[in-house]
Amino acid sequence: MLKLPNAADVETAYERIRSLVHQTPVLSCESINDITGATIFFKCENFQKVGAFKYRGASNAVLSLSKGQKQSGVATHSSGNHAAALALAAQKAGVQAHIVMPENAPEIKKKAVEGYGAAITFCEPTLHAREKTLEDIIRKTGAVLVHPYNQWEVICGQGTASLELMQQQSNIETILTPVGGGGLLSGTASYIKERFTGVNVIAAEPVNADDAYRSFKSGILQPVGKPDTIADGLRTSLGTLNFEIIKNKVDQIITVKEESIINAMRMVWERMKIIIEPSSAVPLAAVVENKALFTNRTIGIILTGGNVDLEKLPF
Amino acid sequence: MLKLPNAADVETAYERIRSLVHQTPVLSCESINDITGATIFFKCENFQKVGAFKYRGASNAVLSLSKGQKQSGVATHSSGNHAAALALAAQKAGVQAHIVMPENAPEIKKKAVEGYGAAITFCEPTLHAREKTLEDIIRKTGAVLVHPYNQWEVICGQGTASLELMQQQSNIETILTPVGGGGLLSGTASYIKERFTGVNVIAAEPVNADDAYRSFKSGILQPVGKPDTIADGLRTSLGTLNFEIIKNKVDQIITVKEESIINAMRMVWERMKIIIEPSSAVPLAAVVENKALFTNRTIGIILTGGNVDLEKLPF
Repeated sequence: MLKLPNAADVETAYERIRSLVHQTPVLSCESINDITGATIFFKCENFQKVGAFKYRGASNAVLSLSKGQKQSGVATHSSGNHAAALALAAQKAGVQAHIVMPENAPEIKKKAVEGYGAAITFCEPTLHAREKTLEDIIRKTGAVLVHPYNQWEVICGQGTASLELMQQQSNIETILTPVGGGGLLSGTASYIKERFTGVNVIAAEPVNADDAYRSFKSGILQPVGKPDTIADGLRTSLGTLNFEIIKNKVDQIITVKEESIINAMRMVWERMKIIIEPSSAVPLAAVVENKALFTNRTIGIILTGGNVDLEKLPF
Repeated sequence: MLKLPNAADVETAYERIRSLVHQTPVLSCESINDITGATIFFKCENFQKVGAFKYRGASNAVLSLSKGQKQSGVATHSSGNHAAALALAAQKAGVQAHIVMPENAPEIKKKAVEGYGAAITFCEPTLHAREKTLEDIIRKTGAVLVHPYNQWEVICGQGTASLELMQQQSNIETILTPVGGGGLLSGTASYIKERFTGVNVIAAEPVNADDAYRSFKSGILQPVGKPDTIADGLRTSLGTLNFEIIKNKVDQIITVKEESIINAMRMVWERMKIIIEPSSAVPLAAVVENKALFTNRTIGIILTGGNVDLEKLPF
């Protein structure tokens, strides 16, 4: 049987990375509580290094390498937060990072990854080209693949966000995270369902990229198809290891409309005065769309990241 | 001789309002420290109630009223943060607020003030019409005028932001605030120059609305002329009481270009993931424009507010 990460593995990851990650603040907002009828505590991973929780998983993966592996470097393909997270985590550990990025990645992301000293290889913007290019690099350099979500160390690292949240706000009854590849959700469930057995773990997903919802309902891993959502961090398909954990430990997956995501994002910007990316707004959208389910509950929401292109806002 | 507020008056104001205001967090940002060569602590009054430090002064003014005055209500004219601040402070104290607003005030600000239960009177968008309308209301209702900055209780209330900042971060060597009417700057200087004699108090002002700079240099209060700045909170002329304090207690006033304000605002949005209005960015613009002056200094900057129209961003 496949061995899955448990709460102790998340705690070990936290010991490994805690001096490197920001202990991000937990904020609440009276007017959002009034609107939703719930008491919500937001774990601000948008303030995390590189502006996303992904730095936790990437750091844990890099620090878990053997000495020999560190000399070979790490590699991944990503156009988003994982690329920056792995590049910075590697740089801090003195490890070479090789990042495959699609040619059409936003200029600002290319610069960030470059700024962290990673070697970038550009390729055509197709999944096939990305995987092929990455394979070539790994064959040439011997670098260790650090997957954005479908990997044990990454899952354990992402779980540390909830570990910290429960230390900061111990009265939480329900934790909500978004779900894309499933790294954050599976890490959260691995930790919470063992250490806080009474706490619900609920995922929120755009209805336009509802592979996790369909997989969870059917018990069979389903691919995402053609995701058409503003929540760019959630367009990926659920990973296999992630799904194993999620199907056993997650309480519920809720899908939300695009309009609700944009409204929730704007609500956080206007009322909390903090910048979150669309993916971060998906759990709040689920609370607003399902008020009856969450009334009078004390909820923790992980705000996953704050990297948005200010020139392309949806409002 | 005119009696001016002193540090003890600010401390008394703090005792009066502390249970009503948010103790806003102090944030710092590695990459902004790297860019500026300084160590900067940002006091996040953009997270204050109504999204601005103005709530401190308005609360202190309302709570300083006699029982009889409370029955008559309070009044002011404002299209901005002071209107919302006074409306909410009055509502919390069970006092009627009368707010004169220009007809062309943003819809969102009208709604906020209305939502706090204030009686709004609209008038033509000229200073003359605003003052005349306010005078009529005060004559009819007997309401007490609460000026946005040129008033003792308001100044003492605004000074509490720096009091809190020094409690949270005691190693600060220089405090920077923006200056418009001068309420925040005069309150800050009143407190700091008596309780922390070694700490510099420096103001930053848009060069396109440089009445405080010219007044400070010449020693004679000068009106603002035609301010043409994106920093909408700083278009007003310095108040007389404010100027008395500022000319005696402030160390320096620095003017900054519009371009620097926009760049600094964007820097905070992108790197700190928090939303600040243009006026809040003026002190950071002064640090960036005058690097040599601030290198290796430990600086406190008051981020004054976070109320921006997301549909009219300068970037």
